[in-house]
Amino acid sequence: MTSTVKNATGIHVLSQPHLTGIGPLSYGDIRAYLDRAAHYAHELEKGDFVSDALRGRIVLSLFFENSTRTLVSFEMAARRLGAEVVNWNVEASSLKKGESFDDTIKTLNAMGPDAIVIRHSEYGAPDYVARLVDCPVINAGDSWREHPTQALLDALTIEQARGGIEGLKVAICGDIAHSRVAHSNMILLRKLGAEVHAVAPPTLMPEKFPVEGVQVFGTLEEGIADCDIVMMLRLQKERMQEGMIGSDIEYFRKFGLTHEKLGLASPDALVMHPGPMNHGVEISDEVADDPERSLILKQVRNGVPVRMAVLEMLLRE
Amino acid sequence: MTSTVKNATGIHVLSQPHLTGIGPLSYGDIRAYLDRAAHYAHELEKGDFVSDALRGRIVLSLFFENSTRTLVSFEMAARRLGAEVVNWNVEASSLKKGESFDDTIKTLNAMGPDAIVIRHSEYGAPDYVARLVDCPVINAGDSWREHPTQALLDALTIEQARGGIEGLKVAICGDIAHSRVAHSNMILLRKLGAEVHAVAPPTLMPEKFPVEGVQVFGTLEEGIADCDIVMMLRLQKERMQEGMIGSDIEYFRKFGLTHEKLGLASPDALVMHPGPMNHGVEISDEVADDPERSLILKQVRNGVPVRMAVLEMLLRE
Amino acid sequence: MTSTVKNATGIHVLSQPHLTGIGPLSYGDIRAYLDRAAHYAHELEKGDFVSDALRGRIVLSLFFENSTRTLVSFEMAARRLGAEVVNWNVEASSLKKGESFDDTIKTLNAMGPDAIVIRHSEYGAPDYVARLVDCPVINAGDSWREHPTQALLDALTIEQARGGIEGLKVAICGDIAHSRVAHSNMILLRKLGAEVHAVAPPTLMPEKFPVEGVQVFGTLEEGIADCDIVMMLRLQKERMQEGMIGSDIEYFRKFGLTHEKLGLASPDALVMHPGPMNHGVEISDEVADDPERSLILKQVRNGVPVRMAVLEMLLRE
Repeated sequence: MTSTVKNATGIHVLSQPHLTGIGPLSYGDIRAYLDRAAHYAHELEKGDFVSDALRGRIVLSLFFENSTRTLVSFEMAARRLGAEVVNWNVEASSLKKGESFDDTIKTLNAMGPDAIVIRHSEYGAPDYVARLVDCPVINAGDSWREHPTQALLDALTIEQARGGIEGLKVAICGDIAHSRVAHSNMILLRKLGAEVHAVAPPTLMPEKFPVEGVQVFGTLEEGIADCDIVMMLRLQKERMQEGMIGSDIEYFRKFGLTHEKLGLASPDALVMHPGPMNHGVEISDEVADDPERSLILKQVRNGVPVRMAVLEMLLRE
Repeated sequence: MTSTVKNATGIHVLSQPHLTGIGPLSYGDIRAYLDRAAHYAHELEKGDFVSDALRGRIVLSLFFENSTRTLVSFEMAARRLGAEVVNWNVEASSLKKGESFDDTIKTLNAMGPDAIVIRHSEYGAPDYVARLVDCPVINAGDSWREHPTQALLDALTIEQARGGIEGLKVAICGDIAHSRVAHSNMILLRKLGAEVHAVAPPTLMPEKFPVEGVQVFGTLEEGIADCDIVMMLRLQKERMQEGMIGSDIEYFRKFGLTHEKLGLASPDALVMHPGPMNHGVEISDEVADDPERSLILKQVRNGVPVRMAVLEMLLRE
Repeated sequence: MTSTVKNATGIHVLSQPHLTGIGPLSYGDIRAYLDRAAHYAHELEKGDFVSDALRGRIVLSLFFENSTRTLVSFEMAARRLGAEVVNWNVEASSLKKGESFDDTIKTLNAMGPDAIVIRHSEYGAPDYVARLVDCPVINAGDSWREHPTQALLDALTIEQARGGIEGLKVAICGDIAHSRVAHSNMILLRKLGAEVHAVAPPTLMPEKFPVEGVQVFGTLEEGIADCDIVMMLRLQKERMQEGMIGSDIEYFRKFGLTHEKLGLASPDALVMHPGPMNHGVEISDEVADDPERSLILKQVRNGVPVRMAVLEMLLRE
């Protein structure tokens, strides 16, 4: 893998001033983020964590799409490090009075935030914003392209559970075509040396993948066979209306994860899901709540230390 | 009354890790909350109050029902003690995308808040949430069941004005059947030794009370006779639509508090109302704004120190 | 001009406990605000600014009208000084349940905020609120009357660019009749000794001005001739629906600022706009984005230090 760049004090120097996706990150960037996140996960676990690392810094959140879970996770991360968060509200904004997107972004940038966290339905919006502003931009999800902090928290969760990622077999299952989580994870997992299986019905399988070496499977049974990690994706209800899949019941029968199907994976296979879940559609209650198998709440838990690491490292530079 | 449990350093140990209602509290718990709240009321009164008591702690507010006054009061309380507040927005949440209530709560809990403040229209929701999470849960009002911080701030207000509660005659008047404020106050006032009068038309009187010894009156004139405290309740407009009462004017004539009717109470009787008020429905402008008689703004003022005490004491343990 | 009042330590004593408009300010008040704002602008420019000047203080924002840019600017200002901000949400408030405006304000005041920032569509609302509460009130815009922090940030921007305001010729152009920005700026610019031109079509020109000595022009060409500063105003789209102006295109042809028309002003004339802009209506893209001529993003940038100065000076007293 690529080497790590360090500064005079031995700290890794990020190759990117922003985190708009996993794609542009070097192996060293990813390791540095994950190692720092693991540190914070450990610190938070001990309890009574207090830090002034980002005291006086202001993080501006620009959520053009609703996502309270991601927003709350970023807010908690920023505040755990002593930073302030200002939430900009798209519904009450000048955009709704006809201001151009560029003017809105340049205006907010002129107010001098120390970082911007952005979620947007348009492909590449975070990169576009990054070119307009003077501070680090963190992508909290854009279209079906990238959701890099989700991929980092998934990787941290796998590393905590398995000690490492290289050589693991990971199946990503469900609505891959429309999933930014799937795309970021494929890139990250491949960079860290995992074998990645893409498992979906034809209508939910993308025409191409963002990285080389992804193996394609048309049935859950084949796709998860001998896998160490089974990562289920949320099925967007609108896919049904669009005729891309049949009914909930039919989808669950074919692509819903049950304990029975999980028996085909590695004996100690672990289950992941980025949430929010559709119980009984892509995953059964029993699997989702199985304390031996499910990493789902650990994924959520790791969202905070991952975002702490990302905010701290980007703001420090 | 029950005795107070103290730890090695002489500080009262709360019998409950949450504050989901007044019902489960011991006499010692109530005294400890009220004494600490009185301390903070005094400190705030002096001005220039600054505290780091809850520095680094994050309070998550989950308001499933709108209530800006209660939310702002909790936010001010948390921030006066140096804590951060993260407001979760039900309208923008995954619940609206079909996520189950349990998954939403478990997800938010996994992010590691230090306390949760919840308001919900469903009976017992705070207790339900308390069983799912790892941090203290504070009920900011559930259905018509309990609103414990309101009862505590009412008790603090009475104690400040009268020096104590034991032996006082308190009339609770109006829409008792649908009032969480009335229910929490009845429990608290009886635990502290007050004589409690329930005063309401038959359609707004509950079939039973949460405590023993509440005296029932069908007219305001009889109910407030010789009372030391007259606590008026907000009339929900929907009660009129439901046919439970006649017109505003008719209700005011029979159950609206005027100076004339107040003349039947104790000569130095004081008036309370949890707000927001319907002027000219349950209370006249003159009584509401009478600086000699009305404790209404003092109640609001005491909301902040009471919530400071509650947050601090629950988070300390 | 009027003299400046100083206290024992040589710090200017503000003549007003609130900032409800530029109108009531003395020359000394204005100078003190601008000097302190210039100090903070300089400090922010250096980067890594951290301050505890308002630690423990809570600013309550009451935005009855949407304005995310002004709200975010105030929030950033408060937080840069270590203060906390609590945002009250009119949509979720008791006002929507029929509570009176007075009760809402008295209730929020009783919670003990250290300052209130208010935006309201009604003329004089901030003065009305100031009479009801115990803390400084800052007007973030009321009706078409005043928007004092905007005028202060405009003045700071001019002073930074030109070294001073006295003797400058400033043209204020567009929908003056409905612009609180224009009104506050006219008062402030006249107090600081500028020559002020009001430039508008008859339907957008007010019948009278808030100060003496404003010169009236009916065409952009005449109004901006030889001016040092050309301040364009946003055209509210509803003016078109009300028949006060013709089409966008017609308005732009007559009153839209282009480089060609700007050629009539002083050779080094600078352009301002309070935002949000309607490109191609009151201003061309080329002028708005001209780095040599446009001060528009500097205006936005100066919003933060101006509001820091205002919050700090009003809260200190």
